[in-house]
Amino acid sequence: MIVVMRMGSPMSSVESVVKRIADLGGQAHVSHGTERTIIGVIGDQRTLNPQTLEVLADVEKVVPILHRFKLTSRDFRPERTVISIGDVAIGGDEVVIMAGPCAVESEEQLWETAQAVKKAGAKILRGGAFKPRTSPYSFQGLGFEGLRLLREVADELGMLVVTEVVSPEMVPLVAEYADILQVGTRNMSNHSLLRMVGQTQHPVLLKRGMMATIEEFLMAAEYILTYDNYQVMLCERGIRTFETFTRNTLDISAIPALHELSHLPVIVDPSHSTGKAFLVEYASRAAIAAGADGLIVEVHPHPEEALSDGVQSLRPEKFAAMMADLKRVAMAVGRVL
Amino acid sequence: MIVVMRMGSPMSSVESVVKRIADLGGQAHVSHGTERTIIGVIGDQRTLNPQTLEVLADVEKVVPILHRFKLTSRDFRPERTVISIGDVAIGGDEVVIMAGPCAVESEEQLWETAQAVKKAGAKILRGGAFKPRTSPYSFQGLGFEGLRLLREVADELGMLVVTEVVSPEMVPLVAEYADILQVGTRNMSNHSLLRMVGQTQHPVLLKRGMMATIEEFLMAAEYILTYDNYQVMLCERGIRTFETFTRNTLDISAIPALHELSHLPVIVDPSHSTGKAFLVEYASRAAIAAGADGLIVEVHPHPEEALSDGVQSLRPEKFAAMMADLKRVAMAVGRVL
Amino acid sequence: MIVVMRMGSPMSSVESVVKRIADLGGQAHVSHGTERTIIGVIGDQRTLNPQTLEVLADVEKVVPILHRFKLTSRDFRPERTVISIGDVAIGGDEVVIMAGPCAVESEEQLWETAQAVKKAGAKILRGGAFKPRTSPYSFQGLGFEGLRLLREVADELGMLVVTEVVSPEMVPLVAEYADILQVGTRNMSNHSLLRMVGQTQHPVLLKRGMMATIEEFLMAAEYILTYDNYQVMLCERGIRTFETFTRNTLDISAIPALHELSHLPVIVDPSHSTGKAFLVEYASRAAIAAGADGLIVEVHPHPEEALSDGVQSLRPEKFAAMMADLKRVAMAVGRVL
Amino acid sequence: MIVVMRMGSPMSSVESVVKRIADLGGQAHVSHGTERTIIGVIGDQRTLNPQTLEVLADVEKVVPILHRFKLTSRDFRPERTVISIGDVAIGGDEVVIMAGPCAVESEEQLWETAQAVKKAGAKILRGGAFKPRTSPYSFQGLGFEGLRLLREVADELGMLVVTEVVSPEMVPLVAEYADILQVGTRNMSNHSLLRMVGQTQHPVLLKRGMMATIEEFLMAAEYILTYDNYQVMLCERGIRTFETFTRNTLDISAIPALHELSHLPVIVDPSHSTGKAFLVEYASRAAIAAGADGLIVEVHPHPEEALSDGVQSLRPEKFAAMMADLKRVAMAVGRVL
Repeated sequence: MIVVMRMGSPMSSVESVVKRIADLGGQAHVSHGTERTIIGVIGDQRTLNPQTLEVLADVEKVVPILHRFKLTSRDFRPERTVISIGDVAIGGDEVVIMAGPCAVESEEQLWETAQAVKKAGAKILRGGAFKPRTSPYSFQGLGFEGLRLLREVADELGMLVVTEVVSPEMVPLVAEYADILQVGTRNMSNHSLLRMVGQTQHPVLLKRGMMATIEEFLMAAEYILTYDNYQVMLCERGIRTFETFTRNTLDISAIPALHELSHLPVIVDPSHSTGKAFLVEYASRAAIAAGADGLIVEVHPHPEEALSDGVQSLRPEKFAAMMADLKRVAMAVGRVL
Repeated sequence: MIVVMRMGSPMSSVESVVKRIADLGGQAHVSHGTERTIIGVIGDQRTLNPQTLEVLADVEKVVPILHRFKLTSRDFRPERTVISIGDVAIGGDEVVIMAGPCAVESEEQLWETAQAVKKAGAKILRGGAFKPRTSPYSFQGLGFEGLRLLREVADELGMLVVTEVVSPEMVPLVAEYADILQVGTRNMSNHSLLRMVGQTQHPVLLKRGMMATIEEFLMAAEYILTYDNYQVMLCERGIRTFETFTRNTLDISAIPALHELSHLPVIVDPSHSTGKAFLVEYASRAAIAAGADGLIVEVHPHPEEALSDGVQSLRPEKFAAMMADLKRVAMAVGRVL
Repeated sequence: MIVVMRMGSPMSSVESVVKRIADLGGQAHVSHGTERTIIGVIGDQRTLNPQTLEVLADVEKVVPILHRFKLTSRDFRPERTVISIGDVAIGGDEVVIMAGPCAVESEEQLWETAQAVKKAGAKILRGGAFKPRTSPYSFQGLGFEGLRLLREVADELGMLVVTEVVSPEMVPLVAEYADILQVGTRNMSNHSLLRMVGQTQHPVLLKRGMMATIEEFLMAAEYILTYDNYQVMLCERGIRTFETFTRNTLDISAIPALHELSHLPVIVDPSHSTGKAFLVEYASRAAIAAGADGLIVEVHPHPEEALSDGVQSLRPEKFAAMMADLKRVAMAVGRVL
Repeated sequence: MIVVMRMGSPMSSVESVVKRIADLGGQAHVSHGTERTIIGVIGDQRTLNPQTLEVLADVEKVVPILHRFKLTSRDFRPERTVISIGDVAIGGDEVVIMAGPCAVESEEQLWETAQAVKKAGAKILRGGAFKPRTSPYSFQGLGFEGLRLLREVADELGMLVVTEVVSPEMVPLVAEYADILQVGTRNMSNHSLLRMVGQTQHPVLLKRGMMATIEEFLMAAEYILTYDNYQVMLCERGIRTFETFTRNTLDISAIPALHELSHLPVIVDPSHSTGKAFLVEYASRAAIAAGADGLIVEVHPHPEEALSDGVQSLRPEKFAAMMADLKRVAMAVGRVL
């Protein structure tokens, strides 16, 4: 990191900073510019706290230079991580599709959806059993029964299951039923939960917080990787901005940016990032064109009766048509689907 | 809510919407405008899901009219809520000050800070025992030992304790030691946690999510109030915007806006909302001038040695000077401090 | 629009609103809900000012229902607009590429760039002659000499010219030299400028303000269309958000959203929306996959010597390689390039 | 500025960067850290373009260290600037109030408003003659007639006039009638306009762009100061964020932040920053408590008939009551009003 001194700082203030850096186990490089003295700090920025320097006399600011994530970084692991679950490989040549209803509502609804998405090419069944809702008066999910149904239907059809876990104490139960544990956008910074999913050694789909920077997103993944669980998929699901026509703003550039900074696979959620069914196909095409390793898409046989997110759910026939289009886009960028 | 039909929608589409509204237990009022037909829906918007209408044929959009919070609303309870804990009343004439270190680091540090803030007029001791940190490599708090110290020091000095609880299963333990349970900004939408603190009947300081709208903030409070726990303080702590000079952007207008919409007291955190010690005093003055019922301020005897947030912590002597200024501002707006 | 009355409003307040609506030439539909009385207003929302109602006694809020743009809307003109300039058609099957340097720096630089982009398939030459810069100390463009060079080089190579005009009084001059007048992001709400380019009847490339909603963007276009100039291309160039890894956030969903709401062609600027050369290719692919009718790309033969925006400029060989990839993506979504 | 090299960069890349810095007239300080080599650049950052370094081989990023504004900075001029116009001093002990209608609508409306605000203590009359409106169908102002009325009424009452100028060619005309030229939020980056108002040597009220960072705001002021016109007031008027309950989000911390970085006076617009009349008083109190040197407030005798912004305009009697409250807050923070 770099310590920038105020203009006209006395030599004694500079010396105090240099001494403090040495006390903290770092090395200081002082350079006197035309307007400011700046002090470069050599040492492990991850343990050396910049704030302990920023409060010293005559320090104007401390500018961090290195990223704070390490295990998640491509500097640490240059090759892309491929996560293999059964015969599905995420992060390889294939673009992997996860699809299913926002929430599991009934055995019938799940069966109808799962069969349709399987037939259209989805390999992983998504569905919420425990739903985090903005309103306490909204449908909160079927709970354990939802989990059981997901497993049963997926097994019957030869699919994998991804579902959200919302609380640390539920992790072991959900891990018993799901192949991939989803950490939702509202829980991206729930460190108790991140630690618990880290410990399971289960594959994790980590959704970006709706207001998390790319660096914070990778720091959240880092919590999981510190438990030696490297099977983490980064899921871009739209960020919150001033624009309200869409539910969120899909940060399409985050896909290549995450690939540049990290070795982990990147999944895109075109449903939450747009919030409108007619936009899902365009967002899906764009995501694959930008290099996404997979998609997670909401599909519902009767969106007008959905207990949640109906407005952004595709009907099965629309989903099937989209899949055909996406295959062509995947091929155009050297991938298969 | 209002259903807006696409231009030129056939009568049959309008009739389908009207029928669907009736099926859901609502009443429809159709009005044919110069460009669009719109359908007003009468019924409980909190249970009637707008999305089930938005997916019907020829519906352009559904516009919600009412707020979705109820118990939290001033429509439901017109008088301001005053929360009394021991001899401290929050939400009355007095502006209540909570102060202390970001994290409890040692008995000595806590004592030194607590004595200083008590002397300057703070009635409630703040301090983190369990710290949610962006980086897994940062100091995560003293844990249980931190809780014990907070209680001991506060009892000795005749202060109340507010501290953060980060996980549902920790709620009973923290409630045993703290007078006020703090739900942090990263957990504002952690519904498992909200439900658990709701059940304790303990006073709660609920921080606004850094990405939460005022409506979402009140919906989070609603989760707690549904357990008949009305002792909730709403804490504005800055929202995330494009501006990076400050750590967050203090949404000063949220104070009168929350007072207009809700009966709950409003507390402001000038430390996190600015992120720089020199701004804390100005933000504190502004908060009181805008009607805040209290402040929660970070104070550290040696910010340059703080294990977290040193850069936004006030030294005790600066805090004492600020308190003198704040008394004058409080008086100017008809409050006491 | 819909007028929402406060809970428990007296009948007299409702009657005042109804009377006021009638005075303004509208019609009122009153409906008494379970919690609120709401009043639907029938009449031209574009001339009837909602604020004149919002200030009446006991009005809680006024909710607009219709979009405020008209000529720009697909309701007004259902078929997509195709803009033909010479033998180039923008908004048809072909994805049209505009490319060139951020700023015209010298005859040599412009020639080298123009020949390269022409060879790779670009049909329109871009280049800034008058540059709006954040800093008064930065290079501000060659001015008139830049305009002259653009025209000369484009004519020699059989290309069209697009260049920015920054001030109303410069419009006639720039229109003499350029085929397409660019209105930059900082000037999207400069109505004097919009009116002037509207009057020229020249094709216009209107960039979205970095802070403009989709509705505001279309309202800016409306200013031009009111002068019967329908040759407007809407250019998505990234919006400002909290994320700082990229220079702006490319709002990829804006492409299909604008196509849904408006008949005007949509162009994407992958250079400004990302701000980093390595992201430009991914953003370009995504834009075409999402339905963009064209791209405007910065190319510079020696980015390390560029006087502006070098860091987001592609080298000619990189641009040529990208064009080959983009052809495949265009084909995959039924377009040609 | 600091150049950060990629991990494992060869020595030759480092040498190329060092050579380039020397060619550009700077000096390089190389320091080899544990993970990265970083190169400090000594020289004038305002003329040395960081991008010319960022595109060199193996450069990961370039981190700017210094602010880019100079004349605007307190480093350049440590004492606060006081702008004296007639017997009004802006930036001194007195908090100066500018008030009046959003737009001048008629002689009667202006007289009624001006007399009321003068009586309540306002010294400067505000009012729009040329109005920049989002919609071409909205009232665009009385134009020249509005200017004439402002001058006439202000002279009669012994007030100063502040009014907006929206186009460079209008500057001389507006400067003839107004004491203070207002540059609006949509024109903060309209450099043609900034240069023209710079040349007049007239006092300027520069509004912050609704999506401008503090640094960009000060860079816009810098454009004016380069013409040796130091009579610039910085006006915080709310920034655009995800929150939509208020029209904008008042960035209250920008007041002390601007005072720390710059010597120029800071004015706050509580009307546009909140967009709702009931919030204006709270925002005004907060602004003065946070150190604002003045306020610019919208007042209208009949908000329900206002042709623009009625919903955020105070009635004269409300304005007078607010002024009495504000006097107390000003005194509490050592100012007079």
